[in-house]
Amino acid sequence: MKFKIHKNDTASKARAGIIKTEHGNIQTPIFMPVGTVGSVKGIHQHELADDIKAQIILGNTYHLYLRPGREVLQEAGGLHKFMNWQRPILTDSGGYQVFSLAERRKITEEGVKFNSHINGSKHLFTPENVVETERIIGADIIMALDECTPYPADYQYAKNSMELTHRWLKRGVEHFRKTKPLYGYEQAYFPIVQGSTYTDLRIQSAEFIAEQNCEGNAIGGLSVGEPTEVMYEMLEKVNAILPSDKPRYLMGVGTPENILEGIALGTDMFDCVMPTRNGRHGLLFTRQGTINIKNKKWEKDFSPIDPDGSSLVDSQYSKAYLRHLIKSDERLGAQIAGIHNLSFYLNLVKEAREHIMQGDFLNWKNKMVKQLSTRL
Amino acid sequence: MKFKIHKNDTASKARAGIIKTEHGNIQTPIFMPVGTVGSVKGIHQHELADDIKAQIILGNTYHLYLRPGREVLQEAGGLHKFMNWQRPILTDSGGYQVFSLAERRKITEEGVKFNSHINGSKHLFTPENVVETERIIGADIIMALDECTPYPADYQYAKNSMELTHRWLKRGVEHFRKTKPLYGYEQAYFPIVQGSTYTDLRIQSAEFIAEQNCEGNAIGGLSVGEPTEVMYEMLEKVNAILPSDKPRYLMGVGTPENILEGIALGTDMFDCVMPTRNGRHGLLFTRQGTINIKNKKWEKDFSPIDPDGSSLVDSQYSKAYLRHLIKSDERLGAQIAGIHNLSFYLNLVKEAREHIMQGDFLNWKNKMVKQLSTRL
Repeated sequence: MKFKIHKNDTASKARAGIIKTEHGNIQTPIFMPVGTVGSVKGIHQHELADDIKAQIILGNTYHLYLRPGREVLQEAGGLHKFMNWQRPILTDSGGYQVFSLAERRKITEEGVKFNSHINGSKHLFTPENVVETERIIGADIIMALDECTPYPADYQYAKNSMELTHRWLKRGVEHFRKTKPLYGYEQAYFPIVQGSTYTDLRIQSAEFIAEQNCEGNAIGGLSVGEPTEVMYEMLEKVNAILPSDKPRYLMGVGTPENILEGIALGTDMFDCVMPTRNGRHGLLFTRQGTINIKNKKWEKDFSPIDPDGSSLVDSQYSKAYLRHLIKSDERLGAQIAGIHNLSFYLNLVKEAREHIMQGDFLNWKNKMVKQLSTRL
Repeated sequence: MKFKIHKNDTASKARAGIIKTEHGNIQTPIFMPVGTVGSVKGIHQHELADDIKAQIILGNTYHLYLRPGREVLQEAGGLHKFMNWQRPILTDSGGYQVFSLAERRKITEEGVKFNSHINGSKHLFTPENVVETERIIGADIIMALDECTPYPADYQYAKNSMELTHRWLKRGVEHFRKTKPLYGYEQAYFPIVQGSTYTDLRIQSAEFIAEQNCEGNAIGGLSVGEPTEVMYEMLEKVNAILPSDKPRYLMGVGTPENILEGIALGTDMFDCVMPTRNGRHGLLFTRQGTINIKNKKWEKDFSPIDPDGSSLVDSQYSKAYLRHLIKSDERLGAQIAGIHNLSFYLNLVKEAREHIMQGDFLNWKNKMVKQLSTRL
């Protein structure tokens, strides 16, 4: 993996760059659609590539480990081949889902024991075996096992949790460096900053993570319930420490506004289930603000879903039709909303990049953040 | 609507023809995907048109009447515009759903009263107001209100039910003839033969229906639980009476084998939810037979879903991947299976037509029926 910065914004910390992987290039800043179990919910791979123009997608190690499992993935030759997706993939470590989804989890120094949320079967994730699972999945970028500190956490819990994440990281880095990729292309290993909402812990964590000299770095444990301003404050502190010549990835964030602010603070990569999850419930993101398509006001609005949108669905279907589908719980409604929202997110980061390149990002960002927070 | 027969098979009753509507031509025999509430479940309109190559789809009057309702459909300018589907549409009368889905239904001479299955609201369908609803929906072919006689029915019930359907038909035809289409293109009105599994009733009903001199005729109340051989027997008797210069539509049928046998008995049009519904549960139809993709044997089968298939999904995704999606209850699984199965059905009737045209339909049909009933 190679990362190159094309332009640093002078009025903000934003930067435009490129990540080169053996599965293709990623223009940063970038948003990564979430393909939980090897599928971005309700969306075909060719729609992701050709219509939404996703440059990289995310897979969840926890889900893929449980289904279809390591054996099937390895025999398939990795996730790219299994799901027929030729562009880059990033996998999380599974830690987040173990803490949010799995049952009877127990954290020890060794790792985390848990019972599957599907059938209750018992499993253990360690910093080492997660690297192995991610080798089998074969993502281009793989994440270290961390404890995503819940919010709120008292100082002592947050400190202990961060220190455990750091000890796990040392083991993970070591295991990563002594193992090899399985399918003939390189994988990059990203560590994760924790430290909850405590500035000194975040700084300490960012310094520790930076020292590991990995190919990129991530910020975890944000957007987990803390006020948005606190998230931005932590992000600012952390980004000031994480090396500027490596990509910075803010995990699990967020709204279009969050992403623009994150870019302004020097972040390069984002992922979130919001575009598809909120889409299923009828929430559409547009340049003019958010639409709750279930509202009565759209019942007889036969205009296109989004005249500013570039995806096929934006011009093919009307607001009234989409409202009808979502209200009737028809599958096609979720599909349309998901494509629209993902396409919107991808266009948003693309436009952000263009404004960074032409030097007027900050003004544009401030205008957009205001517009995006409108409720239509 | 115009119907023209291009070729009558000499070894069977099969015929190849064309139905011309103002929304385009339909090559018969044809299978019509079911677009219940204005959407074929999980499938985009452009996929239906370009990949599945559907020539006509079906809409359910009961569902569309309840949601989005007549007012929205009328303001949209009809269902074609509302859902953005330019090719022909056929609507059933809603009778079938009133009898299978709605609550507290009560049949009177006037029509059928029922409570919505969605919110319990009270409604009345009459032969006349169903014509009006179908005028508003604006389908190219619209069906008369009938009572779909349940199976088994004793002789007296079946006779009374058929006679009610006939009296309703007289009123429906009269109302259809004195009303006009709303959107500037013609609509055709099809009556429905009933009579349960009683040969004399079926003959009596077919004669009555033929006398109405409508533009096409349908056979209802079959494939509702009776043995397949009884269905074929009734169909044979009825088709011998329904005029040969008008399309014959066998409602709600069926498996690929049923459709081929129906074609051999002189039927031109078919619809069924089986391709999408069974697809959602992992059942795939192929030329070699049916696949239950959930079976363990497909777990590591990384070959394409169907090497004989012509749809995009057939070559893009593997059996192992589809199995994983269906087992994980991922939406994309149902989407892929639905596209595959519908594309298979459309290819099957297309191929049947080619064999009718080249004069070797019966041999081909007999070979295919055997093959199709294999379980892979």
